[in-house]
Amino acid sequence: MHLRWRLNEVKRVKLIVAYDGTNYCGWQVQPNGISVAGTLNQHLSELLNEDIYVLGASRTDAGVHARGNVAVFDTEARMPADRISYALNARLPEDIRIQDSREVPPDFHPRFAKTRKTYEYKIWNRRFPEPCTRLYSLFYHWNLDVERMRRAAAYLVGTHDFTSFCTSKPEVTNHVRTIYSLEIDVQGETMEYGREICGNGVGMITVRICGNGFLYNMVRIIVGTLLKVGGGMMEPEEVQTILEAKDRSLAGDTAQAHGLTLVGIEYL
Amino acid sequence: MHLRWRLNEVKRVKLIVAYDGTNYCGWQVQPNGISVAGTLNQHLSELLNEDIYVLGASRTDAGVHARGNVAVFDTEARMPADRISYALNARLPEDIRIQDSREVPPDFHPRFAKTRKTYEYKIWNRRFPEPCTRLYSLFYHWNLDVERMRRAAAYLVGTHDFTSFCTSKPEVTNHVRTIYSLEIDVQGETMEYGREICGNGVGMITVRICGNGFLYNMVRIIVGTLLKVGGGMMEPEEVQTILEAKDRSLAGDTAQAHGLTLVGIEYL
Repeated sequence: MHLRWRLNEVKRVKLIVAYDGTNYCGWQVQPNGISVAGTLNQHLSELLNEDIYVLGASRTDAGVHARGNVAVFDTEARMPADRISYALNARLPEDIRIQDSREVPPDFHPRFAKTRKTYEYKIWNRRFPEPCTRLYSLFYHWNLDVERMRRAAAYLVGTHDFTSFCTSKPEVTNHVRTIYSLEIDVQGETMEYGREICGNGVGMITVRICGNGFLYNMVRIIVGTLLKVGGGMMEPEEVQTILEAKDRSLAGDTAQAHGLTLVGIEYL
Repeated sequence: MHLRWRLNEVKRVKLIVAYDGTNYCGWQVQPNGISVAGTLNQHLSELLNEDIYVLGASRTDAGVHARGNVAVFDTEARMPADRISYALNARLPEDIRIQDSREVPPDFHPRFAKTRKTYEYKIWNRRFPEPCTRLYSLFYHWNLDVERMRRAAAYLVGTHDFTSFCTSKPEVTNHVRTIYSLEIDVQGETMEYGREICGNGVGMITVRICGNGFLYNMVRIIVGTLLKVGGGMMEPEEVQTILEAKDRSLAGDTAQAHGLTLVGIEYL
């Protein structure tokens, strides 16, 4: 038995997980509904022939997508950590794909380490929806002034108390976070037929936001506020006032989940 | 009755149609399977209370997507042409959306007029698939050299006999077409975690091709050939030889349908 334990030492494995969140109730295991973590637990347990429970870096909400969420789990299996990605992808449904698997130190914790997280929120700003991007972007048909949105975004960059821009959770008392960058790009259709059809709207707007961590619904509330500014219902300068007021009711609505993608998490 | 006919003159309406081709057997009505044209016919007939048959500019294959296919139909309905887009979108399934509707001259034919058509073919070139783009791009995990692909593409631009690059149809005897441009762009992930995970692959490759018309499977065979060149199984210069040989068997495979999107059609 001593030898067996030598051969089957416990190791901690880190996964980079991409998923299309459309058909999941979110990352976290729920009593009703199929979750990303639950799906990973099921297929990892079958693959490695032991009970596996993954711990995720970001517990994304229902409908939110990811290109690079991070999960860790402990296993006694002898399968090399870098082969688990291949073996697991062969079992997973096609809307979840492991991008990388590797061994990490046993004390690596995906949530408590210092990180830089990047999210993207996509807004399809045209007269009518576009079928191929409908599941990955918010359709918004009112005119948006992207320059106003950029001016509003500038107030959010830096270290602030984001109480006005989160859904409060009793267990989270510190609302100070740092946003390293908040960029808004526009990808318009430049073809002749495109100019003809876009009576309003500028095309696909991507809000890309990078920070040391995000409070619950923070990215979606920031986007909801930028939409109010872009649509002329709020002045860019008001964002400064809202930050200082620490009052959630002053910011915009929480933008819908399906426009949001967790791009990736860097461990510093 | 004279008055009735004055009020209900026949008009020809042009639609710009976007669709996610994933769940359709293609544009054309088929005995088995749900087609884009059949779906439009059904909902237009219900909306306008008469039998409507649309005529499409491009009869895209099963799985091919469109942001701007064109269809026309004749109707006696009094609904203004530019309102049909709104009324029809309210009835259509969410994977088809009209982008524009307007009246055109009664002799306008979407297929016989001079046009400039643009297609995009997307290739996800990484070690593992990416769930959110899986339905709209080809997953190709072997290393691709995009510079080689660009050199090969240059031989195809201009007016050529594309017999080697089409699936022959007996009714089409003239295989001379003009490609105005063939551009290959790469969108890589520049984040730190991205560099870490992309042991091979360059990211999302977009082949954008614009011409005066395309033969059956022509874009997909061109892409299949560019993949052989990019992967090192063919030299860029061979594309010139293949063009001259007028022999389909020398070109690459027909790339899968789901990576292809008809971007738009300009009428000149």
